[in-house]
Amino acid sequence: MAICSAHTTTTSLHSPCTTVSNAGFRQRQVIFFTSNRRSGGRRHGGARTCFQVSCSVDKPVVIGLAADSGCGKSTFMRRLTSVFGGAAVPPKGGNPDSNTLISDTTTVICLDDYHSLDRNGRKEYGVTALDPRANNFDLMYEQVKAIKDGQAVEKPIYNHVTGLLDPPELITPPKIFVIEGLHPMFDQRVRDLLDFSIYLDISDEVKFAWKIQRDMAERGHSLESIQASIEARKPDFDAYIDPQKQYADAVIEVLPTQLIPGDNEGKVLRVKLIMKEGVKFFNPVYLFDEGSSISWVPCGRKLTCSYPGIKFAYGPDTYFGNEVSVLEMDGQFDKLDELIYVESHLSNLSTKFYGEVTQQMLKHADFPGSNNGTGLFQTIIGLKIRDLYEQIVAERAGVPAEAAKV
Amino acid sequence: MAICSAHTTTTSLHSPCTTVSNAGFRQRQVIFFTSNRRSGGRRHGGARTCFQVSCSVDKPVVIGLAADSGCGKSTFMRRLTSVFGGAAVPPKGGNPDSNTLISDTTTVICLDDYHSLDRNGRKEYGVTALDPRANNFDLMYEQVKAIKDGQAVEKPIYNHVTGLLDPPELITPPKIFVIEGLHPMFDQRVRDLLDFSIYLDISDEVKFAWKIQRDMAERGHSLESIQASIEARKPDFDAYIDPQKQYADAVIEVLPTQLIPGDNEGKVLRVKLIMKEGVKFFNPVYLFDEGSSISWVPCGRKLTCSYPGIKFAYGPDTYFGNEVSVLEMDGQFDKLDELIYVESHLSNLSTKFYGEVTQQMLKHADFPGSNNGTGLFQTIIGLKIRDLYEQIVAERAGVPAEAAKV
Repeated sequence: MAICSAHTTTTSLHSPCTTVSNAGFRQRQVIFFTSNRRSGGRRHGGARTCFQVSCSVDKPVVIGLAADSGCGKSTFMRRLTSVFGGAAVPPKGGNPDSNTLISDTTTVICLDDYHSLDRNGRKEYGVTALDPRANNFDLMYEQVKAIKDGQAVEKPIYNHVTGLLDPPELITPPKIFVIEGLHPMFDQRVRDLLDFSIYLDISDEVKFAWKIQRDMAERGHSLESIQASIEARKPDFDAYIDPQKQYADAVIEVLPTQLIPGDNEGKVLRVKLIMKEGVKFFNPVYLFDEGSSISWVPCGRKLTCSYPGIKFAYGPDTYFGNEVSVLEMDGQFDKLDELIYVESHLSNLSTKFYGEVTQQMLKHADFPGSNNGTGLFQTIIGLKIRDLYEQIVAERAGVPAEAAKV
Repeated sequence: MAICSAHTTTTSLHSPCTTVSNAGFRQRQVIFFTSNRRSGGRRHGGARTCFQVSCSVDKPVVIGLAADSGCGKSTFMRRLTSVFGGAAVPPKGGNPDSNTLISDTTTVICLDDYHSLDRNGRKEYGVTALDPRANNFDLMYEQVKAIKDGQAVEKPIYNHVTGLLDPPELITPPKIFVIEGLHPMFDQRVRDLLDFSIYLDISDEVKFAWKIQRDMAERGHSLESIQASIEARKPDFDAYIDPQKQYADAVIEVLPTQLIPGDNEGKVLRVKLIMKEGVKFFNPVYLFDEGSSISWVPCGRKLTCSYPGIKFAYGPDTYFGNEVSVLEMDGQFDKLDELIYVESHLSNLSTKFYGEVTQQMLKHADFPGSNNGTGLFQTIIGLKIRDLYEQIVAERAGVPAEAAKV
């Protein structure tokens, strides 16, 4: 966590704020800028306020999480921050519609905040939020890079309630910086800044079943309007969002169950955790025997499961030409504490003590997906990110001479 | 092993030889009889030679092995005796056509020796060797019981070369007495004497493929004659041999591979080891997780396999109404020493040191089935029988007062 002191200067929008930075890894002076525009497209002219800040910071580890759904306080992020022991809350005293979540170690920003076109702008130009033209990748890159370099930024806020761009908020470099949203791996410059990337891949069938559940049952939309809204999104989704999964270090794929023939309710899920091999500081989880192909139905003499039971699978595979290990869970737990039985047969979990996965899951038993593979794999990825973070910090600490040259 | 001294007496066939036996578990006087008939059906009249023998013996553990094929020096029995360290050989100085194999610990007799009808007799009455009417179950029971009680017997010899019944041979009680043949579990009295029973279940498809291989390729028989000989055997086999498998403590089932679609060559095999639960002194082997259902393809990053690879499966099941655990291996090893990788993932193997299964398999790499599940499971059953024997001996040693009352 950064401890900073700041003073301000004013300059024209065309004069850059000076960046002064000392050579140390943990001591650094950073400069960030803020423009006081309230919303919409980019405009020129006016004054820029420069802040000069002296900070004592570690360079953050940067994580990208791509998903189709809106950002907000997603379950995944709550599971992640919980692994570090703290709860994630919106910035104190800030915009109540901020999309940011901050905990002791982690700051999660929503990439919707880099929309260059607000709701009106998108209507005007006839583009969706999925379209790269509705997003400011230059600013995204600039600010993610600044954070990664240990510099605080003034990040815009996209207000999901009003559809407008609100005044920016101050984001200081945390230990772990998570960029969550539609396009964390779309722009190569941003992608290259990521220490680890995750893609949440909800299959069309499950997406449809979930949308029906929420929009039809809870909001009274018609089946036709739901279908139409999915169809309308699909071309841009396929063009701009879906291709990012090839870059992800880990993909969580959510599919219909194969345990119930012909099931399309989307209540029982088959979830795959696709883990890229050869990623530094990331050792894929395995079941029983690393590198071989396994299927496992733990329901039997020791674990009694109700219909349709639980089935795990594990094995090597290729994914967009990359060697990966895939762990799969189909079905759901009857009793969440039975998870300890499954946990005891998984290896490379990056837990700090026996049963930590189960403890995390039990702690958040009320979160969606706690009884199936989505919750389990989100928790596991949270543990892997903690491990990755600790390894990066240890490596940096182990090479102080190198770090001092930066 | 029994150490005996003997003297003979002669009596009429209608006068029984007297049995004198002391009360000790390890010291016992036994009497056995021999009839000098050379062959064929039972005849009356003539003289009987009685031997009175004083022996120092342990009561043997009695194992039954049922299989369709002829007896002889079967691979399974060679694997079993090898587990005990010695080689099995025919009785020294006896009938060169004896079907018996003797090693330091084990005596294997072939139940064909209890044919009551020789080849001519069977022709005369129009019955096959599979038919109970061609076999003397009373004598089988009487002699197996005598051996189990620590008494030597004079067992008939069925000469497979001549098809006649040869003069009997002396069988003294070994540590482990194996009765191998068509009907070890057919007669309930004999069945009840067995401490452990095994059924070798070769599926029709594999039996046919093997017979073609041997009788057509090697002996020049026609496909039609092979089919006819199988068909002719089938009714009696189904009526008298096959039903015994319901009583077996372990079944080795040999099936066509499922790794090659439509394969019927019988070269690549899928072999199941079906192990009854709740059998005293017999703990079924398991893969990874006892009591759950597993499939495992060990070929991957650590073990490279050529087509069609290897697939293991394990799980609970029911077999003729009994709870069983089933271990299955489909495919074959490219290199036999890769078996150590498989062995290291199997539990409850009853080995005395790490790698003993692999060592046994490598020692007999030239035996048929050494690269597939038949050899592996025969070896495992050999180890389980050694374990069973040692547990029975230990239990007896633990209750000397009880044993002394016998």
